[in-house]
Amino acid sequence: MERSIANHEVETPSRITIKGILSLLMENVDAGNGKRVISLGMGDPSAYTCFRTTRAAEDAVVDALQSQKFNGYSPTVGLPQTRRAIAEYLSRDLPYKLSSDDVFITSGCTQAIDVALAMLARPGANVLIPRPGFPIYELCAAFRHVEVRHYDLLPNKGWEVDLDAVQALADRNTMALVILNPGNPCGNVYTEQHLKEIAETAEKLNILVIADEVYGHLAFGDTPFVPMGRYGTIVPVLTLGSLSKRWIVPGWRLGWFVTSDPCGMFRKPKVVERIKKYFDILGGPATFIQAAVPQIIEKTDEAFFEKNINMLRLTADICCRLISEIPFLTCPDKPKGSMAMMVKLNLSLLEDISDDIDFCFKLAKEESVIILPGLAVGLKDWVRITFAADPSSLEEGLGRIKSFCQRYAKQS
Amino acid sequence: MERSIANHEVETPSRITIKGILSLLMENVDAGNGKRVISLGMGDPSAYTCFRTTRAAEDAVVDALQSQKFNGYSPTVGLPQTRRAIAEYLSRDLPYKLSSDDVFITSGCTQAIDVALAMLARPGANVLIPRPGFPIYELCAAFRHVEVRHYDLLPNKGWEVDLDAVQALADRNTMALVILNPGNPCGNVYTEQHLKEIAETAEKLNILVIADEVYGHLAFGDTPFVPMGRYGTIVPVLTLGSLSKRWIVPGWRLGWFVTSDPCGMFRKPKVVERIKKYFDILGGPATFIQAAVPQIIEKTDEAFFEKNINMLRLTADICCRLISEIPFLTCPDKPKGSMAMMVKLNLSLLEDISDDIDFCFKLAKEESVIILPGLAVGLKDWVRITFAADPSSLEEGLGRIKSFCQRYAKQS
Repeated sequence: MERSIANHEVETPSRITIKGILSLLMENVDAGNGKRVISLGMGDPSAYTCFRTTRAAEDAVVDALQSQKFNGYSPTVGLPQTRRAIAEYLSRDLPYKLSSDDVFITSGCTQAIDVALAMLARPGANVLIPRPGFPIYELCAAFRHVEVRHYDLLPNKGWEVDLDAVQALADRNTMALVILNPGNPCGNVYTEQHLKEIAETAEKLNILVIADEVYGHLAFGDTPFVPMGRYGTIVPVLTLGSLSKRWIVPGWRLGWFVTSDPCGMFRKPKVVERIKKYFDILGGPATFIQAAVPQIIEKTDEAFFEKNINMLRLTADICCRLISEIPFLTCPDKPKGSMAMMVKLNLSLLEDISDDIDFCFKLAKEESVIILPGLAVGLKDWVRITFAADPSSLEEGLGRIKSFCQRYAKQS
Repeated sequence: MERSIANHEVETPSRITIKGILSLLMENVDAGNGKRVISLGMGDPSAYTCFRTTRAAEDAVVDALQSQKFNGYSPTVGLPQTRRAIAEYLSRDLPYKLSSDDVFITSGCTQAIDVALAMLARPGANVLIPRPGFPIYELCAAFRHVEVRHYDLLPNKGWEVDLDAVQALADRNTMALVILNPGNPCGNVYTEQHLKEIAETAEKLNILVIADEVYGHLAFGDTPFVPMGRYGTIVPVLTLGSLSKRWIVPGWRLGWFVTSDPCGMFRKPKVVERIKKYFDILGGPATFIQAAVPQIIEKTDEAFFEKNINMLRLTADICCRLISEIPFLTCPDKPKGSMAMMVKLNLSLLEDISDDIDFCFKLAKEESVIILPGLAVGLKDWVRITFAADPSSLEEGLGRIKSFCQRYAKQS
């Protein structure tokens, strides 16, 4: 059976995964230190009571389930009413109307990422991925046999895309450029001008843009969220999103893969056929959750969205203020959106801490605080801190980080 | 953009899909003929009121949702309590205990099929698939670059696996043998003896068995359902299943991929690591539906299962009786389980009907009855008829099929 199973010829992607490293960090916590665990590592705010979904969304799902009309299979591309509701929802912010045929329902944004990469996969293909970024892209690309090329985001320029690097990396096998806006892990929110530059660069290079907008609308700074699809007439855009972050329900696994492409490049029959066939082998979200989407979108009050935006603005501010009081950490660019930020470790001021991995493991053990080593998202000697947590956990967590750093401070 | 998208170098699998052909058949229905559509094409009994899930299952899901504790991410391999509950549930019928580490939660059995094939994929690999079978295997194999080799099921031997054919087909690149038991589309339920022979053949050939048990326990004939995992000590078995059929909730997308392998071939760290990493890119089922599983399993009365078995036995009997009264159709092997049966068309007795496709399209148009052409499942000039429907729909549907056949009967 060696041949069948323990076949080492097939390479398992060796990248660190976020969940993998967070698990290891949790295991490193020393329960004997008497401190409650404060996790600022994961992009899942539902763990905190100050971030909770709206009753309207929950009721919509209960209604759909109890109607007994949605226990059967949905079409693999999604229920028509769900596709239509999301098309209308996304079209509110676009200069053209999406058709329900442009919208494919996925099991969360993660599955939408898989669809995007699997659909672009062909021998020798590569995609351009931001660094720091979201490692599911690299993992998925590895499983779908797509080469990844990293371009840097510019920390001193609002984590904008290094467009010169993009142009240098692209070649005839490049299929697409991935952007995350609002950004994970950096908290960036790109201006219209920058999005337009990205679109024009992609168009010049004859590549698509994959716009990961899982944090869509979660912009709390001066720059409003603008969907990449706004430039869909310049370059075809694949928009990925979900209910997960805006509605605080990552566990509901309701996402979408959308062809924001008014020039109709994606409407070629062979392309549509291939996408539909791929959906036949995917799991897809529960039919009753899909069925609830129109009601969720319709019945969610603006007040719910505003409350969450205000809370994110508050917690981002708290986090930044506390970090500014810790000389061993630097946040070069205050987050403007999403739920996390990248913070540089000033390792030269610390003794006996070799890198971000070492920092985070010792922090977990000694202080029971979990933050993500930047290596997991492509930026060594940085850390990613989730600010979507309740204020007291942030205060306490960052207080412990400060004490931890002071303990390891180089004696001058 | 031609290069990126409308790239015809990448072959889209060209196989007919069941949903694809059923859609085409539905489109062919002539609404003007005044007959209500009777669909005996799909394996989704939830459309019929005589097949309905149990209130206990629905309540368990509502409870989990309303607890507000399961709106966040689950571990990608599934919640521990879900894995444990399914391990215990499946172990009831095994001579050894499954560990929760053996159980991976998937978005329906379809996704479990993807995991199985993706995990076995390597350059040059092939898997042995039954014919007639379930075309998701072929579609998935195509997307995951696994070669498919078909072995026949034997209609005059209870649709048993042609083990001589299996031995002839297997070579050093064969990874696994897929069996569906209880069977789709044939309605077979294999004896312990046959399952043991399958296990011994696979062991001799040094290949795994993938046991698709999505219709597990849905056996209403004399042969009880026996899980392939019972022979897990002879050969490693990958067991695929879900709540979908036994609980009549295909739309809930709660499935499992289980390593029924007491000899621990699947516990090699590299193998486990690869499986876990693959789960990181899958969508997975909603956390609250996962969380409901222990309660669903615990609170479902045996009476619910018995009621459904009795209903399936009744509807299978009705279907077989009605078919026996139609000389143009032959069912060589009465179904013993699952929800569908294969029926041979006696085309020599019909005029102006060229094959199964022609038969089904004309039937849809003239009689508004939908059945599946056998070509869709690998058996030309046969049809698959779903008997999991309410008795009056079966009576009327088969009545119309009889009239249809009589209209096309060759004049002797």
